[in-house]
Amino acid sequence: GERNNGFDVLYHNMKHGHLSTKDLADFIRERAAIEEAYSRSMTKLAKSASNYTQLGTFAPVWDVFKTSTEKLASCHLDLVRRLQELIKEVHKYGDEQIKAYKKTKEDVSGTLEAVQNIQSITQALQKSKENYNAKCVEQERLKKEGATQREVDKAAVKSKKATDTYKLYVEKYAAFKSDFEQKMTETAQKFQDIEEMHLLRMKEIIESLSNTIKEIHFQIGEVHEEFINNMTNTTIESLIQKFAESKGTGKERP
Amino acid sequence: GERNNGFDVLYHNMKHGHLSTKDLADFIRERAAIEEAYSRSMTKLAKSASNYTQLGTFAPVWDVFKTSTEKLASCHLDLVRRLQELIKEVHKYGDEQIKAYKKTKEDVSGTLEAVQNIQSITQALQKSKENYNAKCVEQERLKKEGATQREVDKAAVKSKKATDTYKLYVEKYAAFKSDFEQKMTETAQKFQDIEEMHLLRMKEIIESLSNTIKEIHFQIGEVHEEFINNMTNTTIESLIQKFAESKGTGKERP
Repeated sequence: GERNNGFDVLYHNMKHGHLSTKDLADFIRERAAIEEAYSRSMTKLAKSASNYTQLGTFAPVWDVFKTSTEKLASCHLDLVRRLQELIKEVHKYGDEQIKAYKKTKEDVSGTLEAVQNIQSITQALQKSKENYNAKCVEQERLKKEGATQREVDKAAVKSKKATDTYKLYVEKYAAFKSDFEQKMTETAQKFQDIEEMHLLRMKEIIESLSNTIKEIHFQIGEVHEEFINNMTNTTIESLIQKFAESKGTGKERP
Repeated sequence: GERNNGFDVLYHNMKHGHLSTKDLADFIRERAAIEEAYSRSMTKLAKSASNYTQLGTFAPVWDVFKTSTEKLASCHLDLVRRLQELIKEVHKYGDEQIKAYKKTKEDVSGTLEAVQNIQSITQALQKSKENYNAKCVEQERLKKEGATQREVDKAAVKSKKATDTYKLYVEKYAAFKSDFEQKMTETAQKFQDIEEMHLLRMKEIIESLSNTIKEIHFQIGEVHEEFINNMTNTTIESLIQKFAESKGTGKERP
């Protein structure tokens, strides 16, 4: 149950539905841009790691950093690609939404007419009620003031006419109200269905977004684990051994 | 065992140790800058979320996005703070390293001297050996060619002198070699200890870095879980209910 302007509220909400789809696409696009910038910076950082001094015992550790940082960059770039796919899906849904809304606008044109009818009949009914009241009061006044029979009769005719008009509008109002209520109930249900479908679709998109982010987050975790393992395997003994092999000039005493 | 230039290799590697400490500080600083930029972008994205349309049934979902995005920004800012603490630690270690290296330079000055001694005595020994050979050959030549007794005696004196000098250098070389081998063994051990301590300290710093990144990664995972839970709790029914309450004009039929 809504007032007679409930139709407007519901109809506009349908438009807001399309707006929220566009907002969601914008949000995901902005997130993708952030991830892309992060990925680019990580690639740059990986290059820095390979530019650090390749002299001394610590040098091989930079390879471990480089590999891990490159993999982080790659994870975030993967996220970017998947977000871009998702944006395409959101746009596709947005286009479907516009088509569905145009169709709904045609479907509910009967209801809009019923809304306009009930609004105009309500005004007309109010006017005829006021007119009827005025005519009755006038007739009573003439009777009380002892006006001529001709004047009283004339007022009676006017009063009768106002009564008939009022009755007619009451009947018309009843008919329009019944039509309005029936159509409005149908339309309200239709709008509710559209709204539920819209929210369902939006929630599906967000779930897809969450899953993507969660998967990439898991992959990033694996890169971290791998880095920790690689560092554990890069023992102090192995680093000194590698250095002695590259710089050492022999195992014999001079 | 190293050749006589092994001292240089080991001594320079100690300097490379300090260079790698500076590189590691640079690497962490660059990573911190990347995380800071990411955090700032996320804060901006959270603001975008609150600027999206507040009309329609979807509007409350933006609050869920906003909260989650703000928390992501906060996680990455936390990472920045902890990386900055770590950079301070690396710098502190770098300063300690310089002091330790200066002390080591004094400690090994005796070895450097022994290295220089062995290098100069080797050259002198070579020269006196050549001189001794030349003098012997000269003495033999004069004898064969039937030179005067005076000439042969003169050559014998020269040969005797060259032999004595050569013998002296052989003895000196043996003494220097023993001194060099003893000092070089000690110093090589000292350099190895320094190198091991350096790599141990570097590995500790990297472990601290890994742990920090791992903890923040875990916190980010929790933010994702919270977002998923919040979205599950934001049911279609509750969104439509909220919308009806804010826009609806009553539950009574008109």
